[in-house]
Amino acid sequence: MNYILTDENAIYYECGYSNDNSIYLALGSDSYLITDGRYKLDALESLHKTKLIISNNLSLEVSKLINRSKIKKISFNPKEWSYSAITSIKEKTKSKWNSKPDFSHKRRIIKTSQEIKMLKKAVDLGSDAFDIFAEAIRLEGIGISEKRLNFIAERVMRKEGDRALSFEPITALNRNSAKPHAYPSEIISKKGDILLFDAGLKYKRYCSDRTRASYLDGNITFDIEQKFNTKKRQKIYDIVRKAHDRAISKSRAGMKASQIDRFARDVIEKAGYGKYFVHSTGHGVGLDIHEMPYISTRSKTKVEDGMVFTIEPGIYIPGEFGVRIEDMVLMNDGKLEIL
Amino acid sequence: MNYILTDENAIYYECGYSNDNSIYLALGSDSYLITDGRYKLDALESLHKTKLIISNNLSLEVSKLINRSKIKKISFNPKEWSYSAITSIKEKTKSKWNSKPDFSHKRRIIKTSQEIKMLKKAVDLGSDAFDIFAEAIRLEGIGISEKRLNFIAERVMRKEGDRALSFEPITALNRNSAKPHAYPSEIISKKGDILLFDAGLKYKRYCSDRTRASYLDGNITFDIEQKFNTKKRQKIYDIVRKAHDRAISKSRAGMKASQIDRFARDVIEKAGYGKYFVHSTGHGVGLDIHEMPYISTRSKTKVEDGMVFTIEPGIYIPGEFGVRIEDMVLMNDGKLEIL
Repeated sequence: MNYILTDENAIYYECGYSNDNSIYLALGSDSYLITDGRYKLDALESLHKTKLIISNNLSLEVSKLINRSKIKKISFNPKEWSYSAITSIKEKTKSKWNSKPDFSHKRRIIKTSQEIKMLKKAVDLGSDAFDIFAEAIRLEGIGISEKRLNFIAERVMRKEGDRALSFEPITALNRNSAKPHAYPSEIISKKGDILLFDAGLKYKRYCSDRTRASYLDGNITFDIEQKFNTKKRQKIYDIVRKAHDRAISKSRAGMKASQIDRFARDVIEKAGYGKYFVHSTGHGVGLDIHEMPYISTRSKTKVEDGMVFTIEPGIYIPGEFGVRIEDMVLMNDGKLEIL
Repeated sequence: MNYILTDENAIYYECGYSNDNSIYLALGSDSYLITDGRYKLDALESLHKTKLIISNNLSLEVSKLINRSKIKKISFNPKEWSYSAITSIKEKTKSKWNSKPDFSHKRRIIKTSQEIKMLKKAVDLGSDAFDIFAEAIRLEGIGISEKRLNFIAERVMRKEGDRALSFEPITALNRNSAKPHAYPSEIISKKGDILLFDAGLKYKRYCSDRTRASYLDGNITFDIEQKFNTKKRQKIYDIVRKAHDRAISKSRAGMKASQIDRFARDVIEKAGYGKYFVHSTGHGVGLDIHEMPYISTRSKTKVEDGMVFTIEPGIYIPGEFGVRIEDMVLMNDGKLEIL
């Protein structure tokens, strides 16, 4: 297959280097990285098995390479290209262009044992950071704003700059936790609150992702065992936990991703909260924080050994609170194990 | 004009709210924000003069609105849309689609007095943070890694989470400063180093952007006056400063942006370092950290009162060091003033 990439992680997967202004081109047995002069030194240090071409006009350079190769058909992922960037290359070539959504994610869907090690390491770093964040909350986390809580979370997660976040953490209290993608606000934390925390770290560019909903007091932990101070919160929490546990225990290799979503969703629907579970049960994790397989009601992807994804059911009661419990899992020997 | 937007800042400019999964549609006198259920509560809190539509299938919803309106021509910016997103809408409509690169940036190129106030505030916050970062370096900035320096910079800039960065700061020492877009490394800082620091803060989503190259010792400042310990460094610094000062003092309203670039570039070329000035002289700043006008050799944009942009010439000697001096300026009463 001859193909063209511009997404940073897709390019990194192919050649061990990428930046925010480069194009990767695989033409027959040749591969090229085309980028601008700012990145020359970095690229030379890291690139492997790929020719480096420096230019201030990437699309022109790429179209020249394609035309010179006389290759007739190039695949591209229409989701990773802006309309203008791919159009400006297409217009200058005589090749046929084959729109193949997510082909790089498909190449990366089964993780190698080396990748699984790195993902496991990212998960361990993340999990340790959750524990240290809990310690920090016990010391100074009550009576401060969500914004400040979120800042402490980032500081702890990043360990003075040694670590990189997989994404901006979500640190949400009470009614703000009812927004699955909440931004930290000026709400002040107090004993008895529910705290939803969703965060992850990278290890050598591989991501982790985890969510806990915890009872906030001077003994807070991010353990999966939680005791809340109202019956409603406890009930919702227990339903979400049951959905999470059931999806993990019942999934088998060879099943469709939609079946795994169903295991979790059935629990929540039967408890009468189906309309408050407003997202999918999970998503693949690798170099990208969201990749294949998507564990959704509509996904026909078969889940196989070596796939890594999240299980993260949730219930969100508008104006009150939300609960989500998320772990990363690996399909291994036909069953799911928590990483 | 009937138009469609998906870029977060472009949408925010129109309706006071945006998120990472929404589409804004202006059809005649009606405007719509189409987004998914996760964002309903946030959107209802902030949106003005715009109808909110919640859907899990944004492109379908948008195409229905367009078809129902019977409007025949829709403008879109081909740079802000992925090939797949705009194609999936186009395919479902009967309208003509008008590719208008950067039309939202063009709408935003002249800042209102209200916007200038916010940009000035962002610049002041940024400048104060530079001073506090210099203090931190004087205390603990020598004998630590670039990564750690960068972390301290972020901590200081973000002021315990109260402030948002305009972009990830660039904190580069010596040979790493010769990369205009350096990533922080494990290099250890020492007295006598050159430190290039490029950072900015947001105020109510409006960005600031500033760069200084400083002599690192126990008295470091980010003042524009700098004394280096080698003749070569001092010489390069003085050339860059002269280029920066000349562009600011000689620019007038009504000139082409390329002329402003020329004022700076001439100084560097005449000194014999033209080939080491590998980027443009500046870029507009607003809701986006990079927007119009672009102050480049090729830009034909006329620079007018109310435009805000950077002046940031630089010289980068590969393997040795780099210098860039950057300030944000406003064209006001026909002349440039530093914000």
